[in-house]
Amino acid sequence: MQHHDIRMRGFASRHDVDEALALLRQRLTALPSEVIGVEVGLDRVLAEDVVAAVDVPPFERSAVDGYGVRARDTFGASDYNPIPLLLTGEIFPGRALDLSLEAQQAVRIMTGAPLPIGADAVVMAEYAEEDGAHVHILQAISPFKNVGRVGEDIRQGDVVLSRGRKLRPQDLGVLASIQVAHLPVYRRPTVALIITGNELVEVGQPLTGCQIVDSNSLTLAGMCQRLGAIPVRKGLVRDDYQRIKAAIQRATEDVVIITGGTSVGAEDYAPLIVQELGELLVHGVSMRPSSPVGFGFIKQQPIFLIPGNPVSALVAFDAFVGPTLQLLQGLQPSYPYARVRGRLRRKIASAIGRVDFVRVRCTAEGIEPLRVTGASILSSTTRADGFVIVGKNSEGLDAGQEVEVYVF
Amino acid sequence: MQHHDIRMRGFASRHDVDEALALLRQRLTALPSEVIGVEVGLDRVLAEDVVAAVDVPPFERSAVDGYGVRARDTFGASDYNPIPLLLTGEIFPGRALDLSLEAQQAVRIMTGAPLPIGADAVVMAEYAEEDGAHVHILQAISPFKNVGRVGEDIRQGDVVLSRGRKLRPQDLGVLASIQVAHLPVYRRPTVALIITGNELVEVGQPLTGCQIVDSNSLTLAGMCQRLGAIPVRKGLVRDDYQRIKAAIQRATEDVVIITGGTSVGAEDYAPLIVQELGELLVHGVSMRPSSPVGFGFIKQQPIFLIPGNPVSALVAFDAFVGPTLQLLQGLQPSYPYARVRGRLRRKIASAIGRVDFVRVRCTAEGIEPLRVTGASILSSTTRADGFVIVGKNSEGLDAGQEVEVYVF
Repeated sequence: MQHHDIRMRGFASRHDVDEALALLRQRLTALPSEVIGVEVGLDRVLAEDVVAAVDVPPFERSAVDGYGVRARDTFGASDYNPIPLLLTGEIFPGRALDLSLEAQQAVRIMTGAPLPIGADAVVMAEYAEEDGAHVHILQAISPFKNVGRVGEDIRQGDVVLSRGRKLRPQDLGVLASIQVAHLPVYRRPTVALIITGNELVEVGQPLTGCQIVDSNSLTLAGMCQRLGAIPVRKGLVRDDYQRIKAAIQRATEDVVIITGGTSVGAEDYAPLIVQELGELLVHGVSMRPSSPVGFGFIKQQPIFLIPGNPVSALVAFDAFVGPTLQLLQGLQPSYPYARVRGRLRRKIASAIGRVDFVRVRCTAEGIEPLRVTGASILSSTTRADGFVIVGKNSEGLDAGQEVEVYVF
Repeated sequence: MQHHDIRMRGFASRHDVDEALALLRQRLTALPSEVIGVEVGLDRVLAEDVVAAVDVPPFERSAVDGYGVRARDTFGASDYNPIPLLLTGEIFPGRALDLSLEAQQAVRIMTGAPLPIGADAVVMAEYAEEDGAHVHILQAISPFKNVGRVGEDIRQGDVVLSRGRKLRPQDLGVLASIQVAHLPVYRRPTVALIITGNELVEVGQPLTGCQIVDSNSLTLAGMCQRLGAIPVRKGLVRDDYQRIKAAIQRATEDVVIITGGTSVGAEDYAPLIVQELGELLVHGVSMRPSSPVGFGFIKQQPIFLIPGNPVSALVAFDAFVGPTLQLLQGLQPSYPYARVRGRLRRKIASAIGRVDFVRVRCTAEGIEPLRVTGASILSSTTRADGFVIVGKNSEGLDAGQEVEVYVF
């Protein structure tokens, strides 16, 4: 029997959530950019402003099916006073122009087709009647009526999308329309997931009586993916100083997450190893759950010490790893959840000085805090619809109070 | 010069948005399921209920670092009345049990380690003091204090997640924890994107004077991806009856989208081809933009006729294609956007009988409708933060009225 004191090491001092976040912000800058094809740009973050090098549309075009005319030739036209114009041809989209319009002439023109030289407006088909070689115009129109003008969508020189923009589907369309086939985006961060714990077994492997399945690597990998990062599951590592140290040293990813062994128990080696290899900035945060969370840097590489309890792991990720992955991609940190407001059905007790992340259900009767205490109850995060944050200056929230829920 | 009447075919009758959606719901069922590994389960949709085959945790375990005891041996213990128990060993997580506890004995035990036979509670380390072969207990505790009980997270036989659940990161963790390494999910729909228009050129290719770049295939592909579908860009097809027909016949994907050539102009062949090959259920919907939208089925395959104007294409996708991709994955249709409420800064005019999708910006002063009329102004969808829907029974919305914005 070994004799080490299980209270040997305590948390030197706890940080505020905000202080801890500020330390991260101070140290983190966006990763280098890379150039990608616009077709794989969804949800990537622009690393530079995109300035239009061309006008959209690049030529005057018809916005309707109808007749290209000189507007002045239609002045005075109406149902009672049709004005006949000589039909000189027809223009379809994408066909080269081979005609120009003289006075008292019209061309049949389709939506999207370029206006012929000399024409400055389009009469919609329903306001015209063909009659042999002529078309009778039934409506007076002003110049540029039903014409898509050069640059009306985007003008050459416009900043179309700015640095830091997370690209939506329609942004990809806009980039294509200004002939941007390749674009600079911030590199997606890679995240090493190092899972420690002698009791853990990979999903799909048989269990003996004192073992449980590793669930954190799956949850954390999913959280990384959701934020556009690339998780790299490094497998399970035994609670052994040398093995954990070797795993950390081998991790060349942009970010390292190590779960388990992060508290102050006898086998909690990770904080010591970070201290040895780099700098442990934070260990212990005034929050619930996940107060043993910590992080540091080994050279420029952020490394997170995440409690092994699955609920704590989830909260620690949302509080610190998520913002890190966003900053590394050139984004402002934010919870990647929709928010809804509602009234609490029951009070939530908290303590001044501590931030609480409370799982809740959204019901027709209001926001219901889940009656679950243990941070080991992972199923509470699947029963929950989201969470409410009780700030550090609050002793708790009263029943009936309006709160904001971050919806998972 | 050819002589066809450009008003030759009109819309037979316009459908309501709701009627059109009801027709889709009637005809669509979820795709067959497939079995995947839990590690690639993020955002997939469960095709069956998942019932736990095991308890979580599978054994009684300590929830803290401390001393495993028989609770009754601590009765009466306090700071003033420490009760000495004989230390008989220590238990770490994941190590096989080789001891059982007798009366007046204690074992050192770490968080997550299995309770030894005979122990029924754990005294936290801070309420005990070691002294040679003994530990002095300073607190009376009741049975199961600080013990994670068998099945307290998940009980064998519980329905843990239900069919139709879109899997979140923490769901993957829960599935792993009940040893589900593989799971049945609905197949992701594949979507053929057939882009027609003689004026179109692929992004990255040089343009001549009457051509524009295809932007729709990029926007629509991104929209598909966002909903978990797999877009297949089939390239550009010329406005030619036989070529368009061949492209549709070659498309073996679960869903077909064809853009351009869907109106009633002379070269708008797509509706005729759908009619010829299958059934054109809807052509023309009372909505703005995108009123020429249509859809039908060729055998079981839904095919969407989407206007070529980029804003119309976006709205048509949100209104009809998105719900289809959700139904095919076993989900209830919904707009895949966060919603925020705010007050309109300016009125929005609409018409009874028509549903309007109005692009807006969310500003500190309220919700501002964009002053853009053309459905060809794609940049309006990137300037917009989202859209407001004006229902068919509304003549419009007043300035100051509270509205719900779907945030892009």
